[in-house]
Amino acid sequence: MERLNKPLKVKKIVVLGSTGSIGRQTLEVIEMLGPQYKIIALTAGTNDSLLAKQVIKFRPKLAVLSNEEAAGRLSEALNGIGCQVMSGDQGQEIAATLGEADLVVMAQVGFSGFKPLVAALKKGKDVALANKESLVIGGEILNKMGLLDRTRIYPIDSEHSAIWQCLRSGRKEEVDKIYLTASGGPFYGKTRKELSHVTAEEALKHPNWNMGGKITIDSATMMNKGLEIIEAMWLFDLCLDQIEVVVHRQSIVHSMVKYKDGSVIAQLGRPDMHLPIQYALTYPERLESKFENFDPFDLVLDFKKPDRENFPCLDLACRAIKEGGTMPAVMNGANEEAVRSFLTGLIGFNNIAEMIEAIMNKHKPMSDPILQDVVAADRWARREAKVYITAIERRMN
Amino acid sequence: MERLNKPLKVKKIVVLGSTGSIGRQTLEVIEMLGPQYKIIALTAGTNDSLLAKQVIKFRPKLAVLSNEEAAGRLSEALNGIGCQVMSGDQGQEIAATLGEADLVVMAQVGFSGFKPLVAALKKGKDVALANKESLVIGGEILNKMGLLDRTRIYPIDSEHSAIWQCLRSGRKEEVDKIYLTASGGPFYGKTRKELSHVTAEEALKHPNWNMGGKITIDSATMMNKGLEIIEAMWLFDLCLDQIEVVVHRQSIVHSMVKYKDGSVIAQLGRPDMHLPIQYALTYPERLESKFENFDPFDLVLDFKKPDRENFPCLDLACRAIKEGGTMPAVMNGANEEAVRSFLTGLIGFNNIAEMIEAIMNKHKPMSDPILQDVVAADRWARREAKVYITAIERRMN
Repeated sequence: MERLNKPLKVKKIVVLGSTGSIGRQTLEVIEMLGPQYKIIALTAGTNDSLLAKQVIKFRPKLAVLSNEEAAGRLSEALNGIGCQVMSGDQGQEIAATLGEADLVVMAQVGFSGFKPLVAALKKGKDVALANKESLVIGGEILNKMGLLDRTRIYPIDSEHSAIWQCLRSGRKEEVDKIYLTASGGPFYGKTRKELSHVTAEEALKHPNWNMGGKITIDSATMMNKGLEIIEAMWLFDLCLDQIEVVVHRQSIVHSMVKYKDGSVIAQLGRPDMHLPIQYALTYPERLESKFENFDPFDLVLDFKKPDRENFPCLDLACRAIKEGGTMPAVMNGANEEAVRSFLTGLIGFNNIAEMIEAIMNKHKPMSDPILQDVVAADRWARREAKVYITAIERRMN
Repeated sequence: MERLNKPLKVKKIVVLGSTGSIGRQTLEVIEMLGPQYKIIALTAGTNDSLLAKQVIKFRPKLAVLSNEEAAGRLSEALNGIGCQVMSGDQGQEIAATLGEADLVVMAQVGFSGFKPLVAALKKGKDVALANKESLVIGGEILNKMGLLDRTRIYPIDSEHSAIWQCLRSGRKEEVDKIYLTASGGPFYGKTRKELSHVTAEEALKHPNWNMGGKITIDSATMMNKGLEIIEAMWLFDLCLDQIEVVVHRQSIVHSMVKYKDGSVIAQLGRPDMHLPIQYALTYPERLESKFENFDPFDLVLDFKKPDRENFPCLDLACRAIKEGGTMPAVMNGANEEAVRSFLTGLIGFNNIAEMIEAIMNKHKPMSDPILQDVVAADRWARREAKVYITAIERRMN
């Protein structure tokens, strides 16, 4: 328990998905932490103008955009500042496996995080994981490949960061269950009928958290909590029935661990992603933060059972992990397409769950899949999603 | 993190104060835990009939009563069952330092816990401490004597057990502050004027906890929380301004630790002393318990600033530890006498704080006291208390 007196080594960080919500906040934390943390690579999908600004500020040696045209523009914008620019999946994987990286932050959205995660884990990298979809899709495979080394995957999701922190208070085999808290999102308390009228704009107004579009819609449907159940199973080696979802509207208690002796350890804090991001970056240490100013006074916290009837996505996710194999990838792919379609106004809010369920019903999950099977299942689900949406559009016209 | 496969050694336990509330619950926990925990000595003050029953059930080799006559009766009652009976301070100290004891549970009430604690720590014993008064009185001296080895003192107080559990989630130097939760007791929300009418009977009805008489009255005056602040300072090596009291009427969150990164770790559970007792007995392991059945659903938890005006004992305790030396012993001695006088109807509720303050005002604390000075300060405070009470009685007649 003594303060470390040795001079601190500079920690070299790669940030995948740096232009998204978690990526931008990761850069804010790294800036606050000071020169002990050095960014050596940044990657994004298509946003070349923001990535260019980030590169100019943080001076990594490598910058990657998935989109080739955008990468071309980035290359021009960065002309002469000594940063290599790459593009496509290959570029992302190179960034994810840079030899000198001490920690790879995975902050991409959705399926795009999957292959870089596999690559980074194969290379033996320490990974700070914000991309829950990659574990939903590939947890089973990564586990079978022996790549789910839980000492090297640091969760960034606030709930999983909370569990990770609470797990320090006991041994793994002493855990009885965990309580994943859920805000319930902007529509909690509404009936199915009321939900049929809600708009994407309303769904994007999350009561507590300021997050990216995909996760905000997932939070409104409660699919986010479903994905998090699966993520928690793989991250912490738990069974489905060791995980309970608790609706906690205030988003102050970020999750809890119940030990076998009846003691419950909870992690609390303001709903601010800077905290779990910082914890993953500085782990096993806790450093001073300028972002948080938690104060318990005048807090009122409540906890309820989730409404599984009006928010069926929670059970769809549980069904997917129970069926296993390629089913979680299908569920996830269908969800990503459904969310995209809802955001662009193609389908209504209740159609999201309906569409995922319809696609899952059509899928016969393959057990013991390999990497390619999971990728194929994801593609299949997305094709089915397009068929489904076309049918809806036809119905509406 | 691996399950221990070695055969488990029997843990030999001494319970001081076994007929009190914590003592009785300690025996219940030990009974539940099974043959891996063996009681080798039991001690109490005067209750020979209960102690005799406990001895017959748990078969320790030594039983001690402070009161000599009661010890005589115990000796008769236990005739022929092979348990040595002793009496007085000397007997208590022998029990506290038994060579073969693996853990000494200190569950006495008030000052009587002090000398056995010093003796046990001097002998290098592991101590499970429920007696907070001994640290209030002697924390400074024990610290100077190098006897406050924090790896060997296991707190039983629910708040301190909570802090102890939450401290596993970070390093000592990473702690920003701790929040000690307080139920507020049966009278919280009342004004000074309303408090002038409350009776001992009303005070003994604690809303959440089923505890002994002394601590229940301390809880009603909030002196209990003042004593706990001082206890926490010595147990966890904290400054006074690192400790905040939070009124939490539901007694579900037992206390919290705020780390420098802004993360707050809390321990929750039903208000049941069996849990912290068990944790102290089984530490560093957590074993299955049949006592707890925590469930977060439908909980509503709130947190408020304490009312220091109508409950001045909190500030009296803070003043005592700030002035230091012999002052905490004087404050504690005055409080013990005041509580006793309130319970027997000699003084009113508000007189408790008034009396403690008056006695503290008369005392010029000696700095750098030795053991005898602290014992003398305690005696002086009790004599002053009697003078004070006689004056009140005269006023009332």
